[in-house]
Amino acid sequence: MTGAAFGGYQNEIYLQGLAGTTPAFTTDATGLEAAAEKVLEPGPFSYVAGAAGSGATARANRAAFDRWKIVPRMLTDATHRDLATTVLGTPMPAPLALAPVGVQTIVHPDGELATARAAAALGVPMILSTAASSTIEDVAAANGDGPRWFQLYWPGDNDVCASILARAKKEGYTALVVTLDTWTLAWRPGDLDQAYLPFLHGDGVAVPFSDPVFRARLEKPPEDDPASAILRWISMVTGTDKAWAQLPFLREHWDGPIVLKGIQHPDDARRAVDAGMDGIVVSNHGGRQVDGALGSLDALPGVVAAVGGRTEVLFDSGVRTGADMIKALALGADAVLLGRPYLYGLAHGGEDGVRHVLRSLLADFDLTLGLSGHRTVAELGAADLVRT
Amino acid sequence: MTGAAFGGYQNEIYLQGLAGTTPAFTTDATGLEAAAEKVLEPGPFSYVAGAAGSGATARANRAAFDRWKIVPRMLTDATHRDLATTVLGTPMPAPLALAPVGVQTIVHPDGELATARAAAALGVPMILSTAASSTIEDVAAANGDGPRWFQLYWPGDNDVCASILARAKKEGYTALVVTLDTWTLAWRPGDLDQAYLPFLHGDGVAVPFSDPVFRARLEKPPEDDPASAILRWISMVTGTDKAWAQLPFLREHWDGPIVLKGIQHPDDARRAVDAGMDGIVVSNHGGRQVDGALGSLDALPGVVAAVGGRTEVLFDSGVRTGADMIKALALGADAVLLGRPYLYGLAHGGEDGVRHVLRSLLADFDLTLGLSGHRTVAELGAADLVRT
Amino acid sequence: MTGAAFGGYQNEIYLQGLAGTTPAFTTDATGLEAAAEKVLEPGPFSYVAGAAGSGATARANRAAFDRWKIVPRMLTDATHRDLATTVLGTPMPAPLALAPVGVQTIVHPDGELATARAAAALGVPMILSTAASSTIEDVAAANGDGPRWFQLYWPGDNDVCASILARAKKEGYTALVVTLDTWTLAWRPGDLDQAYLPFLHGDGVAVPFSDPVFRARLEKPPEDDPASAILRWISMVTGTDKAWAQLPFLREHWDGPIVLKGIQHPDDARRAVDAGMDGIVVSNHGGRQVDGALGSLDALPGVVAAVGGRTEVLFDSGVRTGADMIKALALGADAVLLGRPYLYGLAHGGEDGVRHVLRSLLADFDLTLGLSGHRTVAELGAADLVRT
Amino acid sequence: MTGAAFGGYQNEIYLQGLAGTTPAFTTDATGLEAAAEKVLEPGPFSYVAGAAGSGATARANRAAFDRWKIVPRMLTDATHRDLATTVLGTPMPAPLALAPVGVQTIVHPDGELATARAAAALGVPMILSTAASSTIEDVAAANGDGPRWFQLYWPGDNDVCASILARAKKEGYTALVVTLDTWTLAWRPGDLDQAYLPFLHGDGVAVPFSDPVFRARLEKPPEDDPASAILRWISMVTGTDKAWAQLPFLREHWDGPIVLKGIQHPDDARRAVDAGMDGIVVSNHGGRQVDGALGSLDALPGVVAAVGGRTEVLFDSGVRTGADMIKALALGADAVLLGRPYLYGLAHGGEDGVRHVLRSLLADFDLTLGLSGHRTVAELGAADLVRT
Repeated sequence: MTGAAFGGYQNEIYLQGLAGTTPAFTTDATGLEAAAEKVLEPGPFSYVAGAAGSGATARANRAAFDRWKIVPRMLTDATHRDLATTVLGTPMPAPLALAPVGVQTIVHPDGELATARAAAALGVPMILSTAASSTIEDVAAANGDGPRWFQLYWPGDNDVCASILARAKKEGYTALVVTLDTWTLAWRPGDLDQAYLPFLHGDGVAVPFSDPVFRARLEKPPEDDPASAILRWISMVTGTDKAWAQLPFLREHWDGPIVLKGIQHPDDARRAVDAGMDGIVVSNHGGRQVDGALGSLDALPGVVAAVGGRTEVLFDSGVRTGADMIKALALGADAVLLGRPYLYGLAHGGEDGVRHVLRSLLADFDLTLGLSGHRTVAELGAADLVRT
Repeated sequence: MTGAAFGGYQNEIYLQGLAGTTPAFTTDATGLEAAAEKVLEPGPFSYVAGAAGSGATARANRAAFDRWKIVPRMLTDATHRDLATTVLGTPMPAPLALAPVGVQTIVHPDGELATARAAAALGVPMILSTAASSTIEDVAAANGDGPRWFQLYWPGDNDVCASILARAKKEGYTALVVTLDTWTLAWRPGDLDQAYLPFLHGDGVAVPFSDPVFRARLEKPPEDDPASAILRWISMVTGTDKAWAQLPFLREHWDGPIVLKGIQHPDDARRAVDAGMDGIVVSNHGGRQVDGALGSLDALPGVVAAVGGRTEVLFDSGVRTGADMIKALALGADAVLLGRPYLYGLAHGGEDGVRHVLRSLLADFDLTLGLSGHRTVAELGAADLVRT
Repeated sequence: MTGAAFGGYQNEIYLQGLAGTTPAFTTDATGLEAAAEKVLEPGPFSYVAGAAGSGATARANRAAFDRWKIVPRMLTDATHRDLATTVLGTPMPAPLALAPVGVQTIVHPDGELATARAAAALGVPMILSTAASSTIEDVAAANGDGPRWFQLYWPGDNDVCASILARAKKEGYTALVVTLDTWTLAWRPGDLDQAYLPFLHGDGVAVPFSDPVFRARLEKPPEDDPASAILRWISMVTGTDKAWAQLPFLREHWDGPIVLKGIQHPDDARRAVDAGMDGIVVSNHGGRQVDGALGSLDALPGVVAAVGGRTEVLFDSGVRTGADMIKALALGADAVLLGRPYLYGLAHGGEDGVRHVLRSLLADFDLTLGLSGHRTVAELGAADLVRT
Repeated sequence: MTGAAFGGYQNEIYLQGLAGTTPAFTTDATGLEAAAEKVLEPGPFSYVAGAAGSGATARANRAAFDRWKIVPRMLTDATHRDLATTVLGTPMPAPLALAPVGVQTIVHPDGELATARAAAALGVPMILSTAASSTIEDVAAANGDGPRWFQLYWPGDNDVCASILARAKKEGYTALVVTLDTWTLAWRPGDLDQAYLPFLHGDGVAVPFSDPVFRARLEKPPEDDPASAILRWISMVTGTDKAWAQLPFLREHWDGPIVLKGIQHPDDARRAVDAGMDGIVVSNHGGRQVDGALGSLDALPGVVAAVGGRTEVLFDSGVRTGADMIKALALGADAVLLGRPYLYGLAHGGEDGVRHVLRSLLADFDLTLGLSGHRTVAELGAADLVRT
């Protein structure tokens, strides 16, 4: 699948217009949230759209993108574009993967299965969350031949951890994405005001509930006492005392690339390199964890400089448009993750909604890349941007 | 026509007030868009007012103007002003031309013909778009003795290109303005959400439809199968692989000044000079092509420095007021292009509407120039501005 | 009248609260405009509140104040304050004068006479506009023993000019304030959209209409043909070709301090010093003349540095609060002028309204000065501010 | 009480959600004001939420926080946190104290007594205002074993001052917080427009009314003539001529730490150190006194540098979230004061409301500190922030 094919979604929509058909869901990346709010209950909407504390970090994520501007180049013959790249050993049609998001059934009954199908259809890697509401096995089946990675909320119980990793590996998840920034949940007023935490209501627990080692840790099976099982699960995730010294445990139990997600400080990036990690994700969890933090894109240049090419760098938090992708890539990211927007697509139309959002973003990226004067992702660099 | 005559439009309006008459359309350059929205269908309005992606570039265009401030001078005796200048060999009553805008019949049935008449009445050069909804010949007739230039969307088919250029030359279009930034359409959510592309509905195709070489390329005449003809035309414009090396073709087929429109990077400006171009237009197509790009005025100083006076520099994208014109000129532009605002005038009142918008802008420019302490455009320079 | 007396207006209001009485008009300087809009017709409101072009200069005036911040000092014993100063030879209870504003009857039938009475009651100098709707003589009578200056729109006809100056001098106007920035009216969309120019409807013409030399210039007396008389008057003011070389004429015909109003550039300030002017007013006419210009407070430091204490510097444009006064004074102004706010007070309640607005501003200034740690205006300096 | 216990409030709320219970009052620190407005009369709401003049200083307080951003660190094992600190000799569970706020009965009948109980329940120091609507003795009784300090509006009458200090000392208020910035009330349009000053209506006078020395100064007992007594009291506070030289009087009459509240300038901080003060509070009274002043957090770094560790530095003005606390502490504050937010809690639900607001802020602080990678307050420093 070539870049031109992505951009072709635009023509597809215009041509449908001849028959009087308009897109079922908006093509405006900045309008997705408002459109999703109309089809979601307040609890799920707040959980997805919300952020930590005053929301300052989420706003900073967007403001950081606005500080950098693309300087387009002319007459470069960028008609034929090839957006393909390989990240973490995974060939990708474009430098984009789906960020891990848990409990997707709160926005649509098909949840992660729909996402897995849409991702596979486009060849975009999906990162399955430990907090998913479908099992590792079911998502793998839905994803089929599509590329997939597994995100880990690192359990305190090593046996549970090893069991989950083994299942993921067996099911063809090639890379492991270890989230560092969420060993406890942040203060999220949007959810707290509604006392809404999806895990407590039975969503997003398929991965642990289906795990035999985890089940063995419980007094009763989850089916008999879901609330206790959920609390046990949360307690295993929350408050764990993970530190750099424990990373070898993951390496022992994962035969493939390992990526640390949540890096914002250059020193932490250096430590990840020193620890032999295969990649890092510069991310602040979409502003959902530390309120008042720097915009993730503001962290990217320092991290890229610290890493010096010794490990792969993915970028996450705040990506909405093709221009955002270009900016992150030009500042040194190897690929970016998309989070909330595909959940809005899922909320609106299940698998079709996710596909529509992804195709829209990829078309936007493809066209904006070409109109900026580039044919490949590799051409992008700091010279393409100015800071205002 | 002198500057004082432009400013006199103000007195004309005030004196009409004695008879209880107010202007039919607003004189507020920043209120034109909202006023036009009231008389336009959503499709045409979105097409004209909309921008690429998140609209960030269109906002950046305006923000760039706001960073520069005029420092007015006193007691300079600027009562009698002469705004006249000559750009691309064309004597002009003021450093202003009408930017090329296609498919003008979507906002008013008189379309480009009304624009051509209004421009001629004021002596302001009109740049006819390749995507115009009237023919090269009809617009020339409507424009009469008025100065006119021709804008080229550079067709992939050299014979079609040569045919169009020959027709334009024959009809008295003196300069050729080659748009570089729109060899494919950007991702424009405002249009996509409505699946509205005017070309697909028969507007804006008069130039190619009337071209004998283009017609010869079709299986059926456009009259018999307009949809196919349009798609063929779009395919000729979209995806062409133009590059610097092909510029000599244009020189061979155009006996007059050639201007490259869409330059934002100093290196591209230098290449245009090296290629012997007679001018460039610093433009980002009003923010309609590359989302997340720098404001066009932010690009101007670097381009002017790179060019070093070796070619003429026109400025486009974001101009709304007389103060905007002064800023662009003080930063080194030889003239500016006006885009959307005159479309809003056309939407409101056809030829009269265009004239009103132009007279308002010219009066504003004339008065603001004089009140800033200047009598001629040539006096303007960087010393007239401060950056805040 | 001491500073403490100004601050006492606060206590007066609070004590009235014991009897259930609240102020008739708001005490919020930033709420005056909205409050006045409720009692004014659209034409007069737009004329007073409006600005040139896009309104950018008016916004820049406010933004300039926001860039500077006061750093308050503690334990300085500022209980007893003396705000008095002497500017242009006029002892003043505080460094404040009423900016010249014409045609005040458009907002209240008592017009300039009410303003003159309110100013006199507080001892604040009033600057009468050439475009006033009451005569030089009537305003002087209403002003009584109050300090008063005269503002000149410099007529093209030297005899008319000399006649007006002689009348003003005879009536006790001590200083002459020559407005440089309004030899023609700017493009003001708010007024133009309504085709509203008060002069054309008979307001604001008392000064010229009552002048015998001006009357002698007319074919018919103004009473018989007011429209022609007004147009004649406007033509005398508009388009005059005044320049630095003509300043000696004013000196010959004015026995007292002469001040140039409208200076924004340091070089113009130097020329005023070189021309022997007794003062300058750093002003952009409240943003009513040159659109897109720098905020007047942004111009002040450069002008103060250029002047180097060789002439008095007044500040105008954007002053709303006591903190604004402190900032202008700390940056080197000897006094400030207040414009639109007192018109809003006049609109709401005639003389009482003007007094209320002035007492509110003076109380705010008095209290803010003291709470900043100062007892006199002379103590203020650049060390009291930081730039953010 | 450990940090983890504070963060546990989050889980408590989520678990209540299982039973369908949501918090009675918002957990969103930035939504407290709007929520309180719904339950308060306009006078009290304006008194609490309002600010001086145009409100610019209150806005600057918030903008200053937004300029600094937290850079979170990963894998630091911050599961177990200890937020405890000791400030002014007072052991505190977290670096937070309740800012002195007078007349609390205007928002809830239980007033300061409810605040004292809530503070004691959490171990957070309360600073009782001289303008409190309950007596020194009653608040001490309500506060019980809780830590408490006393805020002084420094009376002009030394005997009254000595009497009040003696009572406070006797009742276990350990530190004295002397407010410097409010020796007279600022111009506050919100209150003035309603002529609302709570003291004049009998609120907030318990401290002086109950003081025998003050009573002896009156002609009639306060019970017989409250209005006169209030005016007498205000006159004692207003207009006093305190200066640095008078600080020894306080030292003579207070056996414990003395803190000067209202410092914004580094030179004033140095003088406080030179005068042997035990601490200072960097504060601008929440923007309620000097309009147009710098944001208090903008003043903090300069003050901390000037002090050089020679005295304790508390921070006040604009704190709303846990991230705000982290920023102030990282910039050198030893603890912060919380003002308006707990009044909003009091307004909504008395003691329970104050406790909810405090628990929410402490949980937010606890979680944000941990998620930023820190276990103790002492770890925080300038390296945790970047300025954008």
